[in-house]
Amino acid sequence: MSAFESITGCFACEVQWGDCDPAGIIFYPTYFRWMDAATWAFMGSVGYPPRRMRDEHLSMPLVGAECKFLAPALHGDRCEVRSRIARFGGASFVVAHEVVRSDGTALASGNETRVWARYVDGPGTPIKSQPIPDEIKALFRARN
Amino acid sequence: MSAFESITGCFACEVQWGDCDPAGIIFYPTYFRWMDAATWAFMGSVGYPPRRMRDEHLSMPLVGAECKFLAPALHGDRCEVRSRIARFGGASFVVAHEVVRSDGTALASGNETRVWARYVDGPGTPIKSQPIPDEIKALFRARN
Amino acid sequence: MSAFESITGCFACEVQWGDCDPAGIIFYPTYFRWMDAATWAFMGSVGYPPRRMRDEHLSMPLVGAECKFLAPALHGDRCEVRSRIARFGGASFVVAHEVVRSDGTALASGNETRVWARYVDGPGTPIKSQPIPDEIKALFRARN
Amino acid sequence: MSAFESITGCFACEVQWGDCDPAGIIFYPTYFRWMDAATWAFMGSVGYPPRRMRDEHLSMPLVGAECKFLAPALHGDRCEVRSRIARFGGASFVVAHEVVRSDGTALASGNETRVWARYVDGPGTPIKSQPIPDEIKALFRARN
Repeated sequence: MSAFESITGCFACEVQWGDCDPAGIIFYPTYFRWMDAATWAFMGSVGYPPRRMRDEHLSMPLVGAECKFLAPALHGDRCEVRSRIARFGGASFVVAHEVVRSDGTALASGNETRVWARYVDGPGTPIKSQPIPDEIKALFRARN
Repeated sequence: MSAFESITGCFACEVQWGDCDPAGIIFYPTYFRWMDAATWAFMGSVGYPPRRMRDEHLSMPLVGAECKFLAPALHGDRCEVRSRIARFGGASFVVAHEVVRSDGTALASGNETRVWARYVDGPGTPIKSQPIPDEIKALFRARN
Repeated sequence: MSAFESITGCFACEVQWGDCDPAGIIFYPTYFRWMDAATWAFMGSVGYPPRRMRDEHLSMPLVGAECKFLAPALHGDRCEVRSRIARFGGASFVVAHEVVRSDGTALASGNETRVWARYVDGPGTPIKSQPIPDEIKALFRARN
Repeated sequence: MSAFESITGCFACEVQWGDCDPAGIIFYPTYFRWMDAATWAFMGSVGYPPRRMRDEHLSMPLVGAECKFLAPALHGDRCEVRSRIARFGGASFVVAHEVVRSDGTALASGNETRVWARYVDGPGTPIKSQPIPDEIKALFRARN
């Protein structure tokens, strides 16, 4: 894999009551739910919304995810997840995410390692990894 | 309880990948998560955002919830939850919610019965139901 | 639909940290997650575990769900969901659930109305409701 | 921090319908929900169940979490999370988790970095990190 000069995606979210735990702060798996949703939104922003992914039998299963939690988030905090492609490999790629609150505070910083894959026999059937097409990589390349 | 001419709140949401199940449609508890978030947003829209609720030691525990699922929702569907107060009782109230997709399709119709309550000794401590103040009721009253 | 003398299913669960909200009690959509899991476990207990449902292209989408919340549950509470078929219709059925804590306290009481359905073209494809086979109904009938 | 010879905790879980996504496999944040629940269960197994944690105003907020996903899990898979303390620092500690399916397949491998903390003014109030008492560390030490 090599580093990649990526555009940045932006996914708006808000800490809901049910996203928090008895300590009154965000329950940490919520950040991973957001990161997943942010990656789908990022794909949508370059022309691959959920419907097209489905119609073209594409999927993006994960091989790993990690996150550092930098500051506690409270119910009602408005946030955005800023996403970019950190690396493209042959069939896998890394999406880096920063979760930033509306006051500018960085709440979390994480990344997901995903595989570009196709359903062998339509949505819901087993998936097989695929070389990432150059056209896909180009969609995320920053223009200078 | 008596019927109540209520203003309407509006909560925007979107069906995420992780909100769906192996049938490829929304996992039904998601609607209840949305209804809960919509009620909090409705409170916020009349001047009681999460922070104020916390600061004033207020809570809105539920005694019941129900929902009819009218049409399947798919990953990527953009929706809004339209909420209104169906009834105010002495200490309890009913919030009615309609979930409508951006194409106008009604996806779900439900309601929550909640109690107006105060933490006895600050957030996280036991809660006690309270008569709903007239000032609160007035905030939701439709102006003709 | 007519009432039905049903066997009782039993699904063990426990209130996790992340199932609770800042009030320190269970976040109510958790009960619906449990009721859904309890219905699947109930099907499994009569010979239709998830794998068989998948292999036979069967699904059980919902048309409605409701729940009354009777007592607050806390992190660490061990519970069981006791399920029975309240009614069988032609293509739909009602599963009644009672959530009971290990100390005998009834925490919640709800039901789900579901449709018996088949994936038209395999898992993940659109589903079509089906008459509930008598063999299925018989699996749930209490023997006196 | 230094490596630590730890006992192993065991948390049983099962992939539920609502834990899976439209690809028909586990939605990855579910693994983090399980790891969180497994850590609480591990604490409980050495004498610190949720109630005692609450009564003694203790909490275990996270500073980081990561997981590698090794094999896809399907609805109905019965699993266990095997947890051990990988390291104890002054106020922080690392819990390593392995998720293993009943057929012996390793599904996921992750860890959480947590801080030992106390609520300044009771549950739900702000938390402050604390040196981890030697008595706590001793509870997790493997006996040879």
